[in-house]
Order: sequence, then structure tokens, then C-alpha cells
Amino acid sequence: MKILIALGGNALLRRDQVLSAENQIENIRSAAAQLARIALAHTLVITHGNGPQVGLLSLQAAAYHGVAPYPLDVLGAQTEGMIGYLLEQELANLLPVSRTITTLVTRVEVDAHDPAFKHPTKPIGPMYTRAQAQLLAKENGWRVAPDGAGFRRVVASPQPLKVIGLQAIKWLLEHDAIVIAAGGGGIPVARNAVTTASTGVVHGGVHSALHGVEAVIDKDLCSGLLATALDVDCLIIATDVAAVFTDWGLPTQQAIDHVTPQVLASIRFPEGSMGPKVAAARKFVLATKKRAVIGSLNEIENMLLGKAGTTISMEGATAV
Amino acid sequence: MKILIALGGNALLRRDQVLSAENQIENIRSAAAQLARIALAHTLVITHGNGPQVGLLSLQAAAYHGVAPYPLDVLGAQTEGMIGYLLEQELANLLPVSRTITTLVTRVEVDAHDPAFKHPTKPIGPMYTRAQAQLLAKENGWRVAPDGAGFRRVVASPQPLKVIGLQAIKWLLEHDAIVIAAGGGGIPVARNAVTTASTGVVHGGVHSALHGVEAVIDKDLCSGLLATALDVDCLIIATDVAAVFTDWGLPTQQAIDHVTPQVLASIRFPEGSMGPKVAAARKFVLATKKRAVIGSLNEIENMLLGKAGTTISMEGATAV
Repeated sequence: MKILIALGGNALLRRDQVLSAENQIENIRSAAAQLARIALAHTLVITHGNGPQVGLLSLQAAAYHGVAPYPLDVLGAQTEGMIGYLLEQELANLLPVSRTITTLVTRVEVDAHDPAFKHPTKPIGPMYTRAQAQLLAKENGWRVAPDGAGFRRVVASPQPLKVIGLQAIKWLLEHDAIVIAAGGGGIPVARNAVTTASTGVVHGGVHSALHGVEAVIDKDLCSGLLATALDVDCLIIATDVAAVFTDWGLPTQQAIDHVTPQVLASIRFPEGSMGPKVAAARKFVLATKKRAVIGSLNEIENMLLGKAGTTISMEGATAV
Repeated sequence: MKILIALGGNALLRRDQVLSAENQIENIRSAAAQLARIALAHTLVITHGNGPQVGLLSLQAAAYHGVAPYPLDVLGAQTEGMIGYLLEQELANLLPVSRTITTLVTRVEVDAHDPAFKHPTKPIGPMYTRAQAQLLAKENGWRVAPDGAGFRRVVASPQPLKVIGLQAIKWLLEHDAIVIAAGGGGIPVARNAVTTASTGVVHGGVHSALHGVEAVIDKDLCSGLLATALDVDCLIIATDVAAVFTDWGLPTQQAIDHVTPQVLASIRFPEGSMGPKVAAARKFVLATKKRAVIGSLNEIENMLLGKAGTTISMEGATAV
């Protein structure tokens, strides 16, 4: 089978952990063990999030006063290099040397006029208390929003329209290379740069050329787009919760075992966390008639077997 | 022809400039114009340095107090993502959309016992005055050394032994993709982690596995290794000086137009700047009997034509 596995940035560097290199490597190593076993039997594309990581780079850039902070597209590119490297290395250490593993830096086109530029929803960086978050928002002009038990900075997260460099991924998969690509949802680039009060936009220039924009694309929406373009047999979205739940956070919450995209469309999920995962899985299944699974990073192999997480497919769904 | 062009990190972000994203994009855009014209007629591999960039990331990481600074291998991976992205984008904006341009994150194996870990020579980050450099060295445990008109931090720069992922580069070149790879000399990884007082070493783990090490590989030595492995027809080392000079910095200094590797071996050049470029060019020419050219980033096309820079080849050399 050809499988695309999307690893959550929060699962690789948990919100309750110090955002250290050591913690990140430890989590990646743990995920890599499962990925390596899957890679022995399947063709594999791996994507990953970068929310905590891009937020940390942004804080580090702001803490140094010699140079104006680099824009989010450039920081996103940095996280593709970093996380891709660590993933590739841990995977390579578990696989035969004959298996090629390639990490690609991936740009993804978005619409410069996407309404998301005016309504930031994507949480990045560490968790704060409400008071900390309010202070930081005031000091830095950030938007902040609740996430889990705390608050985080939120940035614009426009819809991914096109994965640039798709052809190279296809060529590499033809050789059964393991491809790590579209990290952090891809580096957001747009044809017509706009400036919005809340986010600003980066470097302008030649007309109709692509330019980086100040945003972080949702990695699940991008992964769904890539999974569809590659026509993979299974899209696995690995995150820090065990499944998709109805009534999340309420006493009535209940894990969904198996569901059709049609039924899933009738349930509302939070923006910026489960919302995009469900939307990505739904769109992929509707477009390809293949299977998507959403569940825990620790259960990837069981998700592939349909024994863990929430399976989204056209047929055989249990009533919710 | 198949050409490998190595772009100097100092040429992409000059030592006399603020290390801003804007300056970097401007310099990259200017280099991309030449690269795009060359790409229209040739198969092209591009490598680049990362000295100023990795140094800046290191300063930014140190300025933020929430998380221990990430090690140099991880920061090097970040620069591969960043610089690769910016190069790919500027090139893509100048070429037909049908031409695939791919940026790879590249690891390069070094020997964990390389003596370079005890004798740091690679300058990274911004320029300082002697007084600033001495103070920073004391505060941060850095080694510092003269570079051009000032002083910079120097870090370990072990010899590159093997470009990991070479096969993927070959596959992509077969499709005439433009490949950007081995940025910053590649991410330094080693089989047996050692700890030295001056540099430390990063994350240990499984025996015989590869692990990142605290170093920055010289991008010219790595580019020469890659050029040899790919058997390119011409290796171009584009930097911020016009040619290789004898008696550099003295009143007697003189540009070398054309030289054999044998004659070049008899001349001494400074470690950490022209030294590795000359060594890389010599080794490549001796191994492949092809041609290498060292010269200015602004003269890449003329270097390819033999009209600028210093050409190193087996035959037809002018006496020095």
C-alpha cells in the first residue's frame, strides 16, 4: 500500500513539555520505531506539523535584538529542515542502509486574499496562562486563543491550494524512497502579496511571482491535499488524542470508531485543532474513496490495521 | 553539462550587512538570475554555505531563556530549510513552471574523532570588533578568530566523509530537476559520539547509529565531495572574492587565472576561508580530471565560460 502519515507537531513536541531538542528527539525516536516497521511493508510519505517549533523559533528571533525577526514563512522553512532531519535520521537508524529516505523542503501555494489572514486560528509556540497570554498579546501585537488547558499565540492559517514540487515526490516514490515532505503544512507562498493589519506580509517583488506570506498552513489540510494528489491508499493523521470524539471535553464525550465523511460533516469540531483534521480526512475520503484514520501517535500501526483511532471511509460505518 | 555551483554563505548574507531576511533575499535573488540562465542550458546542482545564518540562529537561541539552545547540527538543518527555500523560490520565479526544482535536507557523515573537534576553524555568525569578540568568548565559552577586517566565532569543522542520500539526488538529476542539496556543508552526523571540552556533542543513543554532532562542515569541501560523487563536468565555487590570490592581503597579492592542482598544492591559503575552497577544487579536479572555478558570486556565468575567477584544471595552466 501507499500510505501518507501526518505526524502532529504537538505530538512531536508536547504542549506540556519544555520545547527542548532532547524532548523533540525522544518523541521523534518513539514515533520512528512505528514508522520504520510500516516502511518495511509499504510505500511511505511522511508529513508533520510544526506549531510548537515555529512558535519557539519566533520567540527566539524576537529575543535577539540585532536583527528584525524573520517572517513566518522563513521560520516555517527552518522547521521543515529541523524536524525533517531529525525524523529522517531516526528512521534511517532503524532501516536497512539500502532504503533511501529523502526530506524535501516544500512550498505550498495559498491565496493571498484568504480570509484567514484576518482571522488567525492556528496555535503556535508554548502554552501560557491566561494572564501571561494577555500580557504577551499586548506587548507583541499577537492574537492569542485558548488551546487545551491554556492559551497560545494564534496566527493566520490559509487554505492550502497546491503542493509545489509534487512531481519530485512522485519520482522518488517510484523508487520506493521514503519521502518526508510538506512539513508544517508546507511553506506558505502566494501570488499576490497583500498586507493586513493583523499579520503583515513579507517580501514583495516581481509581479505574478510567488512570495512567502506570514502564515502557518494547517498540516492536516495540507497532508490531505498531498494524499489526494498522490492518490495514497490510506491517510493516517497521528496526533495527541486517541480518536475523534463527539462532545469533546464534556461529560458526554464519546470516541468515534468508524464513520462516513457524510456523517462526520454533520458534527462540529473546534477550529485550529480537531476541526482541520476532520475536514482533511473527509475531503480525502470523498475525493479518493480511500480510507483515513485519525488517532494517537502511539497507535499508528493499530490505526493502519483499523484497530485504533477513528476510521473515516465510504462504507461500513457504525452509526454515531 | 552537469554543473555543481557552490554558493558562499558569506556571499548570500555579506559580513558587512545586517543579517536580515530582506538582505538575504536580495542577495539570493541576484544570484538566482545567473543560476536560472545557466539552468536553461545545463543540468544543475546547487549547494550553499550557512556561516552567517547558522551563527545568527545560534545567537537567537541563546537570547531566549525558556529553552536550552539547540545544537549546531539542528541549527544547520534549519539553515538548509531556510536558504534552500529562498533559493528555490527565487529560481522558480525565473524559470518555466515545468522545470522541477527540489530542495533536499542533506546529512553528511563525519568522523566523531576528527581532530577538528579540538581545533575549531569555521567562522559563523556576525563580525565583531576584537574587544566584542573577546568579551563574547569569555561570556559564552566560544572560540573566536580573525576573519576579514574583524573577528568571528569559530566552531569545529570536521572533514566530510560521505553525502547521505546521494541516490535521491541522482534520481532527481535523471529527470533534469534542479537539485539544491548539502546546504551549509550538510548536517554533520557521526557514528560514534564523542564529547570534547570545547564543543560538546549532542544526543547519544543506539550504538552504531548516526547522531548529530556540534559542528559546521565546510561547504566547499562537502561540495567537492558531492561534485566528485556525481561526476559533474564543472564545479563552480562562488564566493565574495574575485579569484584565488597569491599573497592575499599583502601589497604583492595577485589573482591566479588558471592553475593545475599540482601547482595550487604548493601555495598556502588561510584555514576556514580560501583554504578549503582551494582544497575542495584540487581534490575534485584530481579525482575527476574535470574543471573547477573559484570566483565571485556576481561572475558565475563568466566563470563557467572561463572568463572570470581562477580555473583549476589538469591542462593548459598558466605559470603562477
